[in-house]
Amino acid sequence: MPLIAMARINENFLKLKAGYLFPEIARRVKAFTEAEPEKAARLIRCGIGDVTEPLPEAARTAMKNAVDELGVRESFRGYGPEQGYDFLREAIVTHNYSHLGISDDEIFVSDGSKCDSGNILDILGASNRIAITDPVYPVYVDTNVMIGNTGEADNDGRYEGLVYLPCTAENNFVPAIPDEPVDLIYLCYPNNPTGASATREELTAWVDYALQNNALILFDAAYEAFIQDPNIPRSIYEIDGARECALEFRSFSKNGGFTGVRCGWVVAPKTVFGTTESGEKISIRDLWSRRTSTKFNGASYPVQRGAEALYSETGKEQVSELIKHYMENARLLRKACEEAGLAVYGGENAPYVWVACPEGTDSWGMFDRMISEVQVVVTPGAGFGAAGEGYFRISAFNSRENTLEVCQRITDVLK
Amino acid sequence: MPLIAMARINENFLKLKAGYLFPEIARRVKAFTEAEPEKAARLIRCGIGDVTEPLPEAARTAMKNAVDELGVRESFRGYGPEQGYDFLREAIVTHNYSHLGISDDEIFVSDGSKCDSGNILDILGASNRIAITDPVYPVYVDTNVMIGNTGEADNDGRYEGLVYLPCTAENNFVPAIPDEPVDLIYLCYPNNPTGASATREELTAWVDYALQNNALILFDAAYEAFIQDPNIPRSIYEIDGARECALEFRSFSKNGGFTGVRCGWVVAPKTVFGTTESGEKISIRDLWSRRTSTKFNGASYPVQRGAEALYSETGKEQVSELIKHYMENARLLRKACEEAGLAVYGGENAPYVWVACPEGTDSWGMFDRMISEVQVVVTPGAGFGAAGEGYFRISAFNSRENTLEVCQRITDVLK
Repeated sequence: MPLIAMARINENFLKLKAGYLFPEIARRVKAFTEAEPEKAARLIRCGIGDVTEPLPEAARTAMKNAVDELGVRESFRGYGPEQGYDFLREAIVTHNYSHLGISDDEIFVSDGSKCDSGNILDILGASNRIAITDPVYPVYVDTNVMIGNTGEADNDGRYEGLVYLPCTAENNFVPAIPDEPVDLIYLCYPNNPTGASATREELTAWVDYALQNNALILFDAAYEAFIQDPNIPRSIYEIDGARECALEFRSFSKNGGFTGVRCGWVVAPKTVFGTTESGEKISIRDLWSRRTSTKFNGASYPVQRGAEALYSETGKEQVSELIKHYMENARLLRKACEEAGLAVYGGENAPYVWVACPEGTDSWGMFDRMISEVQVVVTPGAGFGAAGEGYFRISAFNSRENTLEVCQRITDVLK
Repeated sequence: MPLIAMARINENFLKLKAGYLFPEIARRVKAFTEAEPEKAARLIRCGIGDVTEPLPEAARTAMKNAVDELGVRESFRGYGPEQGYDFLREAIVTHNYSHLGISDDEIFVSDGSKCDSGNILDILGASNRIAITDPVYPVYVDTNVMIGNTGEADNDGRYEGLVYLPCTAENNFVPAIPDEPVDLIYLCYPNNPTGASATREELTAWVDYALQNNALILFDAAYEAFIQDPNIPRSIYEIDGARECALEFRSFSKNGGFTGVRCGWVVAPKTVFGTTESGEKISIRDLWSRRTSTKFNGASYPVQRGAEALYSETGKEQVSELIKHYMENARLLRKACEEAGLAVYGGENAPYVWVACPEGTDSWGMFDRMISEVQVVVTPGAGFGAAGEGYFRISAFNSRENTLEVCQRITDVLK
């Protein structure tokens, strides 16, 4: 054999443990379905946090109109601005940030928050100390592993080089400020998976920490629409100083039912800077804009028109009805779990109910038991991180009928 | 000042020269428009390779039907498979690859080729020797710079660490096999920007080289639909052995007019492997699948239905009409440039005409002259790489009326 190299792969991928959580759930559900097809016909899925109710009429009408526009030469549009159309950037600012000092050119429209929260690492350096909450949305961890920001995983699935911030019932699932300096902090509130929300005081402590340590907060607010308590901040930019230290990730997936339609955005204020090794300050917004120009071609035009329509008067009413529907589901699920004697968290400002497993059952054990005994697919807490062990997540994204049935089955399995 | 680090940025971004080409063109056009608003009203854009004709009716109908489906609970769809819906993966294989041994699970549907050709680097290692043609689609180069696969640029804009393969009139714009070993090779045929196509013999030589050197070919066939000559391969997989050494990037942008709608795909055969440092063979397809699961949430559902419809009988007819329209434009542009005494290339199996600048004018000089004298926006060859100096690209994506007017103005400016 001649001494020639093959094209080298990115070996960081080989550090990834098992499958990404949701494909792993799909695999187990498929295996159950093949083994027990009759029982499987009764399956109710509360696993993936995926919406179930129809796309709002306002969005549908706008999307169809946009498709019609593309059918006429005079109104045809090809490549759009990579950062999003002005009409949508303006609508986003007007309806979310006009009072918070964010401007249109700090909004970057995308095809969804999952992509954004992974892609953001493209513009950040390799030597950052990275803090993530535990349990956590797996994408934050896996994308850091893939890009080489971690070492190997230990037996609990914790990767060397990440600073894990445990979120437990004791701290209301909002982590304590770390006692070591970190450079990047992933925060998600309302939280996936725990359903917890963060108070103004808690977020202020994080912003103060970031400012003191020149750290960057990556704030995922994909579930903002579910906040019911008027005292809970809906954006990180409600906190003084956040415009100097935080990016915000938002999505139309869960308010407008866009999980299959695909649209989200990043807020990158001009006042947020990172640094080079030599200490030069560089605008994070400008880097993100350059990344977006080079590696993205804008979200689909009809999709952007659909997203815009969610901010119309009828659109807002229709979104509000959806939120009300899912939050009533969350209330029913909480109640059923509480009545079954389980410790229940979340579900009050978020569409997720976070439940302590009955004594003696671990997360995947509870997952398997819920499938095999009552044919309800939940998400095992351990799938979100070591500190999620002993919990499971129930999604409130369902029809009322299914939710009531799930409540009944929870009662059945735990009696 | 305490000794604290700020969040570090990816300093590779600072190596990027000027703006990405098309934003730079947009900047110059804007400056001209502000300086000379009256003349600017006459501007005809043949710069960006963006389609201009209406979206085919078959795609529009399918997209609107898909939007309607999302409005009914029973047919609502949320998150789709990250790798694309089966209906579209099947249609892609049936209409492009059924005779070439490619199967559905080797197709990865995306929101466009620009994203794919940048994102593919996520799964590849840092130590690969990378060959790119010159001139070239800037995304290949810029994404390699951003991820750290290059050093700094020299005065000609050539980055240290890349192996440039000059494409000139002498080699018919198909590069010679390099005389040093490389691990990754970007090839694009029909070519952007030169409009050249590669013969079966030329592609065979590249596949043989890749097999002998265990190199990986990244084959961009976004312009496949414009091939008129039946002897020119439409897919790299028409070449024996390509299934062991090549990925293919394809798009609905230019055949179906999807530049604003966004859909493309990657073919990653199961028989293509990369290697670890220790020599272990790893499936490129499996890595790409994992990357897709973790960092992408699938292309928009209505968009995927629109793409599928391009393969229906009416869809194929409508695409064929579009191609005919643009290729007649290309023929007219070639003729006008030839009659003006310029050396003309491409435009016979591709929607781009590649023209040698008149003596004494360089690429950006010709760009500025075409704007200021006759208000036609072309693309300066130098924007695609050092070997593009002395050429400019005219896009055939336009109305017939505009194309005829551009032909007249070319005659005017060069007399």
